[in-house]
Amino acid sequence: MKLGVCYYPEHWPTSRWRTDAEQMKKIGIEYVRVGEFSWSTIEPTPEQMNWQWLDESLDILHEYGLKVILGTPTATPPKWLVDRNPGMLAKDEQGRERGFGSRRHYTFASLEYREECRRIVTIMAQRYGQHPAVVSWQTDNEFGCHDTILSYADADLTAFRLWLKDKYGTIEALNQAWGNVFWSMEYRSFDEIELPNLTVTEANPSHRLDFQRCSSDQVVAYNKLQVDILREHSAGRDLVHNYMGFFTAFDHHKVGEDLDVASWDTYPLGFLDQEAIYTQAEKQTYLRVGHPDFGAFHHDLYRGCGKGRLWIMEQQPGPVNWAPHNPTPADGAVRLWTWEAFSHGAEMVSYFRWRQAPFAQEQMHAGLLRPDAEEAEAAKEASKVASEVEQLSQALGMDADELVSLPSAGKVALMFDYDACWSLDIQPQSRAYRYLFWCYRSYQALRELGLSVDIIPATASLDTYDMLVLPAQAHISADLNRRLDAYQGVLLAGPRTGSKTETYQIPENLAPGPLAERLPLQVERVDALPEHTQPAVSGRWGVGVLKHWHEQIKTDLPCLLKDHGGNPVLVGEGRHYYLGSCLDNSVLKASFAQLAGLAGLETYYLPEGLRIRERGELIFVMNYASHSIDFVPDGAELVIGSRRLEAANIAIWKKC
Amino acid sequence: MKLGVCYYPEHWPTSRWRTDAEQMKKIGIEYVRVGEFSWSTIEPTPEQMNWQWLDESLDILHEYGLKVILGTPTATPPKWLVDRNPGMLAKDEQGRERGFGSRRHYTFASLEYREECRRIVTIMAQRYGQHPAVVSWQTDNEFGCHDTILSYADADLTAFRLWLKDKYGTIEALNQAWGNVFWSMEYRSFDEIELPNLTVTEANPSHRLDFQRCSSDQVVAYNKLQVDILREHSAGRDLVHNYMGFFTAFDHHKVGEDLDVASWDTYPLGFLDQEAIYTQAEKQTYLRVGHPDFGAFHHDLYRGCGKGRLWIMEQQPGPVNWAPHNPTPADGAVRLWTWEAFSHGAEMVSYFRWRQAPFAQEQMHAGLLRPDAEEAEAAKEASKVASEVEQLSQALGMDADELVSLPSAGKVALMFDYDACWSLDIQPQSRAYRYLFWCYRSYQALRELGLSVDIIPATASLDTYDMLVLPAQAHISADLNRRLDAYQGVLLAGPRTGSKTETYQIPENLAPGPLAERLPLQVERVDALPEHTQPAVSGRWGVGVLKHWHEQIKTDLPCLLKDHGGNPVLVGEGRHYYLGSCLDNSVLKASFAQLAGLAGLETYYLPEGLRIRERGELIFVMNYASHSIDFVPDGAELVIGSRRLEAANIAIWKKC
Amino acid sequence: MKLGVCYYPEHWPTSRWRTDAEQMKKIGIEYVRVGEFSWSTIEPTPEQMNWQWLDESLDILHEYGLKVILGTPTATPPKWLVDRNPGMLAKDEQGRERGFGSRRHYTFASLEYREECRRIVTIMAQRYGQHPAVVSWQTDNEFGCHDTILSYADADLTAFRLWLKDKYGTIEALNQAWGNVFWSMEYRSFDEIELPNLTVTEANPSHRLDFQRCSSDQVVAYNKLQVDILREHSAGRDLVHNYMGFFTAFDHHKVGEDLDVASWDTYPLGFLDQEAIYTQAEKQTYLRVGHPDFGAFHHDLYRGCGKGRLWIMEQQPGPVNWAPHNPTPADGAVRLWTWEAFSHGAEMVSYFRWRQAPFAQEQMHAGLLRPDAEEAEAAKEASKVASEVEQLSQALGMDADELVSLPSAGKVALMFDYDACWSLDIQPQSRAYRYLFWCYRSYQALRELGLSVDIIPATASLDTYDMLVLPAQAHISADLNRRLDAYQGVLLAGPRTGSKTETYQIPENLAPGPLAERLPLQVERVDALPEHTQPAVSGRWGVGVLKHWHEQIKTDLPCLLKDHGGNPVLVGEGRHYYLGSCLDNSVLKASFAQLAGLAGLETYYLPEGLRIRERGELIFVMNYASHSIDFVPDGAELVIGSRRLEAANIAIWKKC
Repeated sequence: MKLGVCYYPEHWPTSRWRTDAEQMKKIGIEYVRVGEFSWSTIEPTPEQMNWQWLDESLDILHEYGLKVILGTPTATPPKWLVDRNPGMLAKDEQGRERGFGSRRHYTFASLEYREECRRIVTIMAQRYGQHPAVVSWQTDNEFGCHDTILSYADADLTAFRLWLKDKYGTIEALNQAWGNVFWSMEYRSFDEIELPNLTVTEANPSHRLDFQRCSSDQVVAYNKLQVDILREHSAGRDLVHNYMGFFTAFDHHKVGEDLDVASWDTYPLGFLDQEAIYTQAEKQTYLRVGHPDFGAFHHDLYRGCGKGRLWIMEQQPGPVNWAPHNPTPADGAVRLWTWEAFSHGAEMVSYFRWRQAPFAQEQMHAGLLRPDAEEAEAAKEASKVASEVEQLSQALGMDADELVSLPSAGKVALMFDYDACWSLDIQPQSRAYRYLFWCYRSYQALRELGLSVDIIPATASLDTYDMLVLPAQAHISADLNRRLDAYQGVLLAGPRTGSKTETYQIPENLAPGPLAERLPLQVERVDALPEHTQPAVSGRWGVGVLKHWHEQIKTDLPCLLKDHGGNPVLVGEGRHYYLGSCLDNSVLKASFAQLAGLAGLETYYLPEGLRIRERGELIFVMNYASHSIDFVPDGAELVIGSRRLEAANIAIWKKC
Repeated sequence: MKLGVCYYPEHWPTSRWRTDAEQMKKIGIEYVRVGEFSWSTIEPTPEQMNWQWLDESLDILHEYGLKVILGTPTATPPKWLVDRNPGMLAKDEQGRERGFGSRRHYTFASLEYREECRRIVTIMAQRYGQHPAVVSWQTDNEFGCHDTILSYADADLTAFRLWLKDKYGTIEALNQAWGNVFWSMEYRSFDEIELPNLTVTEANPSHRLDFQRCSSDQVVAYNKLQVDILREHSAGRDLVHNYMGFFTAFDHHKVGEDLDVASWDTYPLGFLDQEAIYTQAEKQTYLRVGHPDFGAFHHDLYRGCGKGRLWIMEQQPGPVNWAPHNPTPADGAVRLWTWEAFSHGAEMVSYFRWRQAPFAQEQMHAGLLRPDAEEAEAAKEASKVASEVEQLSQALGMDADELVSLPSAGKVALMFDYDACWSLDIQPQSRAYRYLFWCYRSYQALRELGLSVDIIPATASLDTYDMLVLPAQAHISADLNRRLDAYQGVLLAGPRTGSKTETYQIPENLAPGPLAERLPLQVERVDALPEHTQPAVSGRWGVGVLKHWHEQIKTDLPCLLKDHGGNPVLVGEGRHYYLGSCLDNSVLKASFAQLAGLAGLETYYLPEGLRIRERGELIFVMNYASHSIDFVPDGAELVIGSRRLEAANIAIWKKC
Repeated sequence: MKLGVCYYPEHWPTSRWRTDAEQMKKIGIEYVRVGEFSWSTIEPTPEQMNWQWLDESLDILHEYGLKVILGTPTATPPKWLVDRNPGMLAKDEQGRERGFGSRRHYTFASLEYREECRRIVTIMAQRYGQHPAVVSWQTDNEFGCHDTILSYADADLTAFRLWLKDKYGTIEALNQAWGNVFWSMEYRSFDEIELPNLTVTEANPSHRLDFQRCSSDQVVAYNKLQVDILREHSAGRDLVHNYMGFFTAFDHHKVGEDLDVASWDTYPLGFLDQEAIYTQAEKQTYLRVGHPDFGAFHHDLYRGCGKGRLWIMEQQPGPVNWAPHNPTPADGAVRLWTWEAFSHGAEMVSYFRWRQAPFAQEQMHAGLLRPDAEEAEAAKEASKVASEVEQLSQALGMDADELVSLPSAGKVALMFDYDACWSLDIQPQSRAYRYLFWCYRSYQALRELGLSVDIIPATASLDTYDMLVLPAQAHISADLNRRLDAYQGVLLAGPRTGSKTETYQIPENLAPGPLAERLPLQVERVDALPEHTQPAVSGRWGVGVLKHWHEQIKTDLPCLLKDHGGNPVLVGEGRHYYLGSCLDNSVLKASFAQLAGLAGLETYYLPEGLRIRERGELIFVMNYASHSIDFVPDGAELVIGSRRLEAANIAIWKKC
């Protein structure tokens, strides 16, 4: 439970650097991220390198006992480098080159750009790999930001053809796998294959899915190239990348396998404002604190990408500049978000950014300091958190590193699979359906029952969980099928699970494919509904409505929920259950409560806007409502906070 | 009244073909469409042709007594062919090439692609033109699908310049006709003319209209090329093309002139969901049966394009995959749609498709069989229709071919003119106005009065109709004017009739142009209104509101409806009437009832969701409501169905 | 107070010209605009010029005593000229060339096109510079119409690099000014700089702002080129350009400095329909008269661009063709609009156009005559205005030229600054914020208090105003700061004033920058809100809500309005006030009333839809409501109109 901050010494006069470091320490900052956009300062021309500013910055930070996360500068190659490597630029789906003038102006598949990355990262790793201040490296910055995963340039086509050849071996195998006989889409060789953009109508979904997978693999390879260099020259340092919210265009689990920690950049207000998942009512209610599950969902998701280790690399400290509307956070919100992260196992929360820049694109993005170097509101809240961590540490009789190691795993697992996400969103059948949204709403329902959840990849071990939810696991691999077979907890599989083969075909036995081995049923037909058509469901497990996706199921299994026509919606018995429709919050929550009961887990219905999370013997409670709530139980031993939770406030107590 | 199905033997193992044929027969299928997307199977490489699969398929179908409609495969040219003829690709309005990877990747104007079509169609016609199974040929597939009529490639520019030279002779004539003196748009030669895209603001409407006409003529020529070959090698077979719903980008009447039958592809749920013409209320009410006039309107329209002969080439059998939302049909809906088609004179209704494909773009599109070869719901409904046709046949003492020949013409004609559609939509004045929508709503009002309607081209003979509606006949040609002059029935001309010359100018005497010869009035000014401004109208003929388009009319004719300011809205006397505004359903229906009365036609106000259609002495009644309705009159002699009509059910009785 | 008309003799047979002139005179027309789209008539081929039609037209108009405003034809270069100078075409933000086929197909920065303009304008000025009919020249037509200010072609890039070099001298200065160290956007030379389009995410706002300024300067240079030629060959004639409504893409004040009169094209109904500033309720209420402040705002704005001289070059005379919906004006509306213009100092109101063209793009655009040469409604209203001007002239004992010279300046000034507009809209923080809209709503509130307002540039002298409003003066230049320092009236500065430096950075002392010298406060943080979040404000000066933009202000100044949390919203004392939030109409009006009181100005709350304007001793009152209003005070000496104002009617009286 450490604090950090993102710092750009190259933006400020040298004379300011010591003052900054001193002030960071005073607030309670321990980690400082540096360098990730500084390529043009490091290498202003092809003939000249300038390390002095960075040497000096690191030395000063070290002098003040601050630990540095050093960023490779590859998200912002300078203009001269782009001019020297014009083939490195991405093209958008419309075929337009995406030029210099902002950031992320490259495609991951460009081999010439990868060479430039290899060059700069090697030099940097050699220079600072053993610097005493440097405890960690961040590769690049926010892979995929500004829609940069899918690119349609020549480099991407070359990479795609190679990737396909590698996967399928022969063109006949590919034609078969994609079903190219349909619409005469058959190819004679891999060299005939094009990228799936600018087709007359939609391209083959297998084609699209493979292109998404290939594009994701380019990110993995691009990251791995940097990782290998950093491991060589800076062994023992934590390697990390900073992921983003509501972003699924590459497989974060695969990228995460090569790194030591997962981190992400959390902007609760910006995402509330811009994301289609939230209703207007939610946008109004949570205007100044963000949605209660936004942080938690991503903390649990990315902890799963980080093999259990999680940092927050950028925490919103005030109004940002990039959402359609940019309100100020409520008083206390920055502290609330910080504690929410800690409650989910974050080892470190780093604010973005130290001091608001008075220039360029993000001049309206708040920092801990204002542009005039005065402290902004967030500095006070960060300071308060720092002293509360100290207080917690004393109360538990643990030192800071022990606090970091408090257990964070949950007893319930929700499977999140990037490949499933791509598959199902390529053909949603109802525009209202989105894999990510359905997973989020499932997570929310579990969390509103007070359950502490792990969000796990399809490759994860399942043994430690009492309850397992597969919201929509499109393809059940043989390996997953084996683990499911061995799984002893309570399993719920949601709509669309097992509905596709690996190459995006319908399984021969129809959905749920291999899952039918333990859930004897067949999905005969799908009713994909508009937003406002919400048929009623009811049954022993609850009452409510279904939405977007509704399967017609043939089965002899016991029926726990039915639709208005008496057709099965949720079926199962013993340890295995299948849900054929997306449900609204009330009946979904009721059903999860039943399942949790079968799994021997205690649940309770939390008041609106309130959330809890367990870590070992500690219970964290967070109030996102705009009114105060009495929640802490009478016998609880409070460590932080008071019994009555004000708006945007938190408390921590020990389990009795 | 025959049933058919669309079948893709190339998608399935050879071993399955006999089983399929046998099962088709069992259900009552008589026609099988084959081949239209199979070019890459026929010609997998430029060096090799593969006819064996098709030889064998046709033989098996023939063996089982099935009749084949053979499709030319030109909607899906293979990749190698595209690479050999890169100039065949279309460009969209933004100038982007529309590449390989789905279907319809060609522009009609490409002479090099026409040569490829000539080649493949000739070989195919020579091979199968006399095959005993082949009773019909379908040219290509769904001309214009995926917005493929207007293309902006080099081939299109070349064709356009030739077309203009052919039409105008001299550039001076074109400049005059288009009014190019306006904004200095004058040309010195046909070689200076560009396509009307990517201009700074909208291009000259005459320019746009001629480009639309030229593009439509390219379709006509493209189709004619295939027709000529097929006539030569396969004389006596019915030539047909399958049109689409709500699609007006080429002149179907002109294409139809070269064919023997018109067919179309009817997807009542997909179109309800995606089309802007339907209100949200309609989309909810008719979610699972489609709008009550969707099928009927197109049946009557395309029967008019087919010189009285109509087939349904593709009938929706279950959920489809391509609309924004894809719900399941109500129980009985597939049967309802089939009978609706028969009631409008369809000789054959063919379901799309036989068996749901488990791969590629349409894997979520239902068939009569599921992907696992089990019968889907639609198979049962088709089977029921087959037996009912038998029952009808016996009740009437007619054989199957006599049933097909039952009269289908109506006593009321509604004129639908593609040229008028293009003209008026180029400059709608109010974004709320669309020619097609106004025609559809006019048709709906007539049909809600129980009238059986023919939708006719501007070139049709008018003599057989007691009542004639010109919803918005922009240009009245000299020939049409002569026929109108001779017409003895009751005529209603709607707003915008006669408002343009052939080259898109305002007539010298203003609207309604030549119509003023028999309707002495002048349109002085137009009030083009936003969606929600709906001034009241009232008068001897009804009460309601007007919408979108409101003409200020100067006339001494008697006034049957007036606006709130007392200005004339519907005027006329004797046999000639003019309506200057678009009206809402209630007053439009009331006015049509008055006109029908004057024409000696009986009308009645049908209950909501119920529709009827006459064929000879038979009356068909279709219930699109979601509740049962008592409608069949006491004296009626029921042939099919019962007196009380359940939801999505039909009945047929003989007129007393 | 003269009337004029736009006339296109090249559209009509020669035989008609005398009749037209005669009829113009009869109606009371005195000015005729001619020639601005006639290049292809003048120069049908590169080898041939044709002046005869224009010689003859001018002679006939002169013969009838009509005064000609002659337009240079450069908005519509002919096709051959474009083919000869392909580099003259603009490119849109997506990089697509904007071709021939409508109008304005050039980029202002093209030097080759400027040479063609120099050539044609010189020949024309030499020929007609001394023609007795010609009293004025219009340069080109509607600069920027159809989004033609920003262009991304090669010519634009060349111009931009030169412009930047000229402004910054060294690339280091530019890098510093733009803050290019952020995201490694630094350049090594001006030749590396690209245009700010097609970047991966948004370009640097300083980059964007300078590109907008450069593009605006291209318009200034383009206009100046024509002005210099016309001054040389036609000295003493009024030079004018016709601006547009709600259009801010170039600096009209700078263009206006080189001209003698400002004119604009006013289409009250078209703009009501198409502009996002108006609510649905306003669109319905004012459907047939336009918004009550639409004309007034632009009259006052452009009079400020014309050094006090204002013409209306195009006045809507009936339905137009280019808005999403094009309703007919209310009876009397054309006269109402004409008198509104006169009340704001317009010397001349010219209707667009004389006779409705029956061809090409604008065939549905009304004129004073219909296409069949009959008088349309507007002709009668124009005629009535002409006789009323005569009546007014007699009542005041002034001749026509004296009437024109009646004082038109107001006592309240509202500063409108194009540079501020570009700055603030580049980063609005809340999508709901737009500089122009906030200025308009501020103007509206002042006007609803009966105040007569001047809209002034940032360079204007402030001395004559009792009250000065800076709605959002982003950058306070040193020069403006000096004038503000010397200003003795009551000053209100609105939100975002002083928030930026000249190069788009945040001032070192934060907003309001230099204004803090006389308004000691600091903007600590900004709350940028969604449309529907409207926190309450209240205080000594009023009660209401704030919207879109809400600053957190630190100050010891007295607080006149506070938000719901007690934070200051409107502060100040003595002569200086600062408003930190956008306010709704009610509390904004109440606050302006307080300020006006302090400034010694009388205000009153006008009934909804009613507006007044003073010119010297005359008071004009205009009724935009759809019902009659009793407003004229008992003692008033009526000159035009009656005491009870009918809908869409006006009155003029002398102050008692």
